[in-house]
Amino acid sequence: MRIGIIGSGFVAQTLGGKLLELGHDVTISSRDTGRRAKTGWGTELPSPEDWAREHAQRGRGAGCGSFADAATFGEVLIIATAGAHSLEALASVDASALTGKTVVDLSNPLQRSGTVTTLSVVNTTSVAEEIQAAYPEARVVKTLNTVNVAVMIDPASLGAETDMFVSGNDPAARQWVSETLLKDWLGWTSVLDLGDITAARAQEMYLPLWLRLLGALGSANINVKVVKAA
Amino acid sequence: MRIGIIGSGFVAQTLGGKLLELGHDVTISSRDTGRRAKTGWGTELPSPEDWAREHAQRGRGAGCGSFADAATFGEVLIIATAGAHSLEALASVDASALTGKTVVDLSNPLQRSGTVTTLSVVNTTSVAEEIQAAYPEARVVKTLNTVNVAVMIDPASLGAETDMFVSGNDPAARQWVSETLLKDWLGWTSVLDLGDITAARAQEMYLPLWLRLLGALGSANINVKVVKAA
Repeated sequence: MRIGIIGSGFVAQTLGGKLLELGHDVTISSRDTGRRAKTGWGTELPSPEDWAREHAQRGRGAGCGSFADAATFGEVLIIATAGAHSLEALASVDASALTGKTVVDLSNPLQRSGTVTTLSVVNTTSVAEEIQAAYPEARVVKTLNTVNVAVMIDPASLGAETDMFVSGNDPAARQWVSETLLKDWLGWTSVLDLGDITAARAQEMYLPLWLRLLGALGSANINVKVVKAA
Repeated sequence: MRIGIIGSGFVAQTLGGKLLELGHDVTISSRDTGRRAKTGWGTELPSPEDWAREHAQRGRGAGCGSFADAATFGEVLIIATAGAHSLEALASVDASALTGKTVVDLSNPLQRSGTVTTLSVVNTTSVAEEIQAAYPEARVVKTLNTVNVAVMIDPASLGAETDMFVSGNDPAARQWVSETLLKDWLGWTSVLDLGDITAARAQEMYLPLWLRLLGALGSANINVKVVKAA
């Protein structure tokens, strides 16, 4: 399948690499494909061009380009930008490139000010709802934003089954994301369907707790299992 | 121990009943102790006076009174009002009644408009932080707001170990809540200390996800277990 990723950071490169390994064609995207970016913890990443070249040398269908290039390329799109910039990145993409496509939004609207992290949109809306409102013909699905990329692509690494959440207005798109992307491709064994895209605000508002758990447990390789009384 | 509960609704009556069973003296509180209130799902509750009388007839140290009565009575206070009204309820209490006391805040700032539920304070603050700011001499601890009262008082009913979160500025108060209130009295076996009271916004911002999980799983008797990679 052809997958266009909006973004070229650590999540885009790592998830993109996993999807390439699975045999898909992946184009990541940025404003400047020659520029090396840094992760939140200061590690320098390959530039998108270097990332694509290194994967292509191993015989994989890797590419990079503008946000518009990735959107046009993908049969499915993945939003892997920082959430505060997701709409800004999409603004350079013609809406027709998203029409009818499943748009999987992984992004979180985290904004840091000193040591304090808040959400740039919250409570009455969410990044995913704003994307859906701006592109009504896209089939936006929110998922994977509640774990780091190591857990995203290898949920079994946690050593116990945990849950992934999915929301979106289009039941068929939610189903494809749940059964194909999450279960078949990435190895998730338990996916909870939270319903329409307004659930995305609940998924994004979990992030402050995720950040405190990271602090308390000293690891970002964490996730939750929902337990229900019999 | 003497425990003052700010509030007289379903949580106050049920948790209060559990603490009475354990042999403590409990005073619940409301504006009008003769008035019967309804739960969110329409069940009529005993009035605070009837609640206290019924428990007293069984030889327990139950009482009811004004918010100020409960605050003065308690060696420890529990805030079990609706979060949007917690500060309003405390406003009738002289600050000196809270000085030096552990104030356990269970409340959630849920506000319903039609079918949509949002938080009345969120993101840059929380109910617990507002209480701590208004009563700097109180030792506010946020906990138990992430489960319903059935799970609060009987975590083993879930059939698997789940986690309870605790935050607050006073380490000794967090420790007392974790070891005595949660573990010894209520039966929690895993308590995660999230640190200072600013973590309360993370605990409260989990509620929208809790509500969506309730919808998806068809039960309010739920909680999460945090899983960390080995």
